[in-house]
Amino acid sequence: MAISTERGTPPAGMTPVPGATPVAWPYRNLLALEDLTAEEIVHILDTAEAFRDVSTRSVKKVPALRGRVVANLFFEDSTRTRTSFTLAAQRLSADLVDFSSKGSSVSKGENLRDTLRNIEAMGVDVVVIRHPASGAAAMAAQCVRCSVVNAGDGRHEHPTQGLLDIFTIRQAKGRIEGLNVAIVGDVANSRVARSNLHGLRKLGASVTFVGPATLVPRAFESLGARICHDLDAVIGEFDVINMLRVQRERMASNVFPSFEEYSRLFGLSGERLRRARPDVLVLHPGPINRGIELTADVADGPRSAILQQVTNGLAVRMAVLFLCHQAAGG
Amino acid sequence: MAISTERGTPPAGMTPVPGATPVAWPYRNLLALEDLTAEEIVHILDTAEAFRDVSTRSVKKVPALRGRVVANLFFEDSTRTRTSFTLAAQRLSADLVDFSSKGSSVSKGENLRDTLRNIEAMGVDVVVIRHPASGAAAMAAQCVRCSVVNAGDGRHEHPTQGLLDIFTIRQAKGRIEGLNVAIVGDVANSRVARSNLHGLRKLGASVTFVGPATLVPRAFESLGARICHDLDAVIGEFDVINMLRVQRERMASNVFPSFEEYSRLFGLSGERLRRARPDVLVLHPGPINRGIELTADVADGPRSAILQQVTNGLAVRMAVLFLCHQAAGG
Amino acid sequence: MAISTERGTPPAGMTPVPGATPVAWPYRNLLALEDLTAEEIVHILDTAEAFRDVSTRSVKKVPALRGRVVANLFFEDSTRTRTSFTLAAQRLSADLVDFSSKGSSVSKGENLRDTLRNIEAMGVDVVVIRHPASGAAAMAAQCVRCSVVNAGDGRHEHPTQGLLDIFTIRQAKGRIEGLNVAIVGDVANSRVARSNLHGLRKLGASVTFVGPATLVPRAFESLGARICHDLDAVIGEFDVINMLRVQRERMASNVFPSFEEYSRLFGLSGERLRRARPDVLVLHPGPINRGIELTADVADGPRSAILQQVTNGLAVRMAVLFLCHQAAGG
Repeated sequence: MAISTERGTPPAGMTPVPGATPVAWPYRNLLALEDLTAEEIVHILDTAEAFRDVSTRSVKKVPALRGRVVANLFFEDSTRTRTSFTLAAQRLSADLVDFSSKGSSVSKGENLRDTLRNIEAMGVDVVVIRHPASGAAAMAAQCVRCSVVNAGDGRHEHPTQGLLDIFTIRQAKGRIEGLNVAIVGDVANSRVARSNLHGLRKLGASVTFVGPATLVPRAFESLGARICHDLDAVIGEFDVINMLRVQRERMASNVFPSFEEYSRLFGLSGERLRRARPDVLVLHPGPINRGIELTADVADGPRSAILQQVTNGLAVRMAVLFLCHQAAGG
Repeated sequence: MAISTERGTPPAGMTPVPGATPVAWPYRNLLALEDLTAEEIVHILDTAEAFRDVSTRSVKKVPALRGRVVANLFFEDSTRTRTSFTLAAQRLSADLVDFSSKGSSVSKGENLRDTLRNIEAMGVDVVVIRHPASGAAAMAAQCVRCSVVNAGDGRHEHPTQGLLDIFTIRQAKGRIEGLNVAIVGDVANSRVARSNLHGLRKLGASVTFVGPATLVPRAFESLGARICHDLDAVIGEFDVINMLRVQRERMASNVFPSFEEYSRLFGLSGERLRRARPDVLVLHPGPINRGIELTADVADGPRSAILQQVTNGLAVRMAVLFLCHQAAGG
Repeated sequence: MAISTERGTPPAGMTPVPGATPVAWPYRNLLALEDLTAEEIVHILDTAEAFRDVSTRSVKKVPALRGRVVANLFFEDSTRTRTSFTLAAQRLSADLVDFSSKGSSVSKGENLRDTLRNIEAMGVDVVVIRHPASGAAAMAAQCVRCSVVNAGDGRHEHPTQGLLDIFTIRQAKGRIEGLNVAIVGDVANSRVARSNLHGLRKLGASVTFVGPATLVPRAFESLGARICHDLDAVIGEFDVINMLRVQRERMASNVFPSFEEYSRLFGLSGERLRRARPDVLVLHPGPINRGIELTADVADGPRSAILQQVTNGLAVRMAVLFLCHQAAGG
């Protein structure tokens, strides 16, 4: 199905998931999956479905955001997410500016609110923000009238990562409801884990957090997750295993003894994978530490959907930029 | 009024200020406001007026510089000015390349002339240059036949900042002639102060430089400015107060004792502002050091035009890129 | 002759060099001139000839790669080559993303293959790669199905630099066959020297490597080059002298005593140039260390084609991006 509309009309011909009602998108911002209803999440996924086709054309462009401006405002290093948003904006024919470089006004002591209001005064339509502080995206949204898309705020949420993971699961499994999903690793510090948890539970999946007690605290049960410290004991139960990235910089802080130890207990090797369900889907947000979270045979094997995640990420971000800008009166 | 012309014809329908004659723009470079006549400055402001409308459209683009190339060549850190020129170029449909990154040929010991002639050999139409040396932009203009726009050269001039300040004043006050304008702060090191001085005086305003004797030397009287070291003594006289940015890096060099001392004597607080004229206009080139040059209530208050400056900066830079490229035979 | 075709048909009206047969371009990658036949090299040069016209238009754009994505993936600092590819991509109407920034996934420990497969999963059509390891471009080409263009891999090859040098020689001399070409300087560490050697020899020129024995080892005779350690003894023999850049960072490693000594023996001064043929062509890949490889009078003199090299580099890179993308089924 093709999206070629220049202006505000929603992409034509989208097929809502049976049972869901079409939603006129009401939110100019995407801050957290926790804020959305199941129907709203499905609407983004369906819009992304329509946009996914664009990336398979030879001319990978639609005029939906022509003459609009998307700004990347990244306060943490990122190539992958920043590039994905950049390509998504280009594919929508938007112009893009990058405020992410070092030596920016921020390093001159400007506060976040002033930076944002300056960006808005320059006529930017959508700000994509990544920030080390949880809640920074919501704070940003209060400063400006243009759209704000959260590209990761501290340990809080990374909603487009959650959406692309869920999109990839739905693509492979045909549904979310009733699935058993494991999220393995440094859950305590992971905004990816939180966005997945909220999105998956709203759509009817069960989520288990798996990892050492230092990284998977009991307190997460209150969010609706099952907690488990022994991967081997439960590995046969899951339809999906989402392996979080080990932050090398956290190794120094002694939350677990060594890469070898971590890998032996919580890494996904070909051998361990044989004890999982035969149709289990393996995800990883990237970049992979090969040999730590995943061995090469798993990362590149038939159960891995890691590269599909990357491809789907673009479609999801096109959908999010498109919907939020529409809601802002674009 | 709309600008939609693809090629060399000047934007249609511009209304010259009464008394001024329309000027066919003769200069391929913009190096300093000191070089221009009052009529020429007004012509840029009027062109910017026409371009300002473009930024309020949903499709914020005109094809005026389609297929032309604008190069940013920044030898000093800048997000704000560099982004403003980037957005201005995009709005004119130009392509943009950035030579500003670290690890450039310059760091390999190449001289400025070779860098510029290489940029020209790559087919660049307009070079936007920022450089720590006063006179660098003029030197650049002698090396190449393409257009050169000065985005700040040492302590010399920052003409597009001067123009956007004057544009913002004209927008608020309806005129420049006869106004009393204060420029407060580190005048000695400020290219913004110099560009404002030259532009404002040519258009018939009076300019007073206010600040400590270490930062506002008597010698500036020879440029036509009135000099004053006591803000409180004169604050009631001004139609416009333009607060310069305190360069934190200069604090180390002991030109004034402390931020607190500076702020107490030359900062603009709500209390001090109450002794100014009720219709005084407050400007600041940004980024603001809140609590030093301005308190938050002044920065965000009804007399502040700081965000309008940012918006107007885009229109002014569109006009400058457009006019200079036209003059170069674009 | 004009190139305005939107899609896969080859640029119309190109005149093959007499004796050469038109070649339907079969390679999705450009990795090394050593891999190509004389006819294939001539085909790229002829395609570049057609594209060279585009850069002389006021609208410097053709729609050949509209909606396609070119990615710069530079693991070594570069402004010149990176910008040249950027402008070439823009002139073909491609979108461009830059993976070259510090703080990229690579610095998070991701291996090159994963980085490349991620870039491919994002829908990139052509990857332009520079890498410190010889063979990195060929390795990259094995990881992905999209096009890979080598922008310099270790000491191996820099094929677009070789092509633009040969293009510039053909432009000035009307032919390559039978010419005597000197390549002077740090040949041992130069990928530029290797690409020139292979390309020039295939087209029938003779190549002499000139420099101190530490930088011009005898072993290069096996590649088909003549070796010489005394520039003055042979300077009268050459139609073309291509001066390699002295890498300042290598000075520290004591391969030659000093800049002064190097310059005295192997630098090209006006005085030394007078003993060369009157129609000798002087090339340099840039950036120039003035006073070391070349004196100013030579760099800026009538025998120098250094700025033409820069201009031709764009046309060559447009041709390479265009042909490789066509071969990939673009």
